[in-house]
Amino acid sequence: MEWIKEEWMEEVSKSTSEFAESVAIVTVKQGDKLNAMTAAWTVPVSHRPALVVVHIAPQRLTHDMIVEAKEFGLSILADDQMELSQHAGTVSGRKVDKFASGILKPKQPKVIQTPVLEGCAATMECKLEKAISMGDHTIFVGRVLALERDLTKKPLILHRGTYYKLGESVGKYY
Amino acid sequence: MEWIKEEWMEEVSKSTSEFAESVAIVTVKQGDKLNAMTAAWTVPVSHRPALVVVHIAPQRLTHDMIVEAKEFGLSILADDQMELSQHAGTVSGRKVDKFASGILKPKQPKVIQTPVLEGCAATMECKLEKAISMGDHTIFVGRVLALERDLTKKPLILHRGTYYKLGESVGKYY
Repeated sequence: MEWIKEEWMEEVSKSTSEFAESVAIVTVKQGDKLNAMTAAWTVPVSHRPALVVVHIAPQRLTHDMIVEAKEFGLSILADDQMELSQHAGTVSGRKVDKFASGILKPKQPKVIQTPVLEGCAATMECKLEKAISMGDHTIFVGRVLALERDLTKKPLILHRGTYYKLGESVGKYY
Repeated sequence: MEWIKEEWMEEVSKSTSEFAESVAIVTVKQGDKLNAMTAAWTVPVSHRPALVVVHIAPQRLTHDMIVEAKEFGLSILADDQMELSQHAGTVSGRKVDKFASGILKPKQPKVIQTPVLEGCAATMECKLEKAISMGDHTIFVGRVLALERDLTKKPLILHRGTYYKLGESVGKYY
């Protein structure tokens, strides 16, 4: 069967960039240590209760910090915040304090201990409901305990390795 | 604690529309019956193996058909295919054959039994790896066995109940 050949698997692995997603920064605080990472593999999973998923690789520092802290912040970046995505996505919290440069500005949380970020399209404070190992990532399921949204801002979009702003509106759902 | 009050939960439930996502149509075939539904809660979860998730409510006909068929097609709609999203999202396969009107055009699959759709930005043929009940939806994890993509097409985006085209490109990831 052709599809099990290695070059075919290489081709199939491109499926991951075929989706388009808003870009989030996941924050997590453990004791005095605050960390952040960029995550695009994040969507809702339930209306009631309000649950969201974010998919994180086990080698990321954020991964183990969420397991320990049992909570995380999810900040949906606005389309003028590409710099935050690049910053939180290119260095490791093991080597540097990602908040030291001032690019990421923590915002006081309402319910959890972990700050979310300033200037975003939306921020969610999540309690960890479940962590499910799946392939080379972990599905973290968070229950949204607090939500803030800025309706004057539009989200940054990632598709096929390129960042976009939202363009022309073409209709309403239903 | 204020956040457990009912009106607060109503507010928090708005978190689901704060993400932005490409819009997919999930197809599934069981015997001679072919069905389709619109799903925006779908992202990758693993590079190797190539796994994707799609979140579907248990009351949908597609839900039980996937459980039985153990496979599904995932067609990422192009930005000129809004009509397909509206069509597959507003009627139930229990009442009508969603393919009868010709709006949804099935395309011959390469690996699985279920057709994907013509004219999309990308199509994936998935084997069901796992079904995990989560709140009021089920996380269906699919292993991507075949991928086709049309690099001349851009995906349709859904955000806060409105469809968008991708707009201005603002940079490259990394």
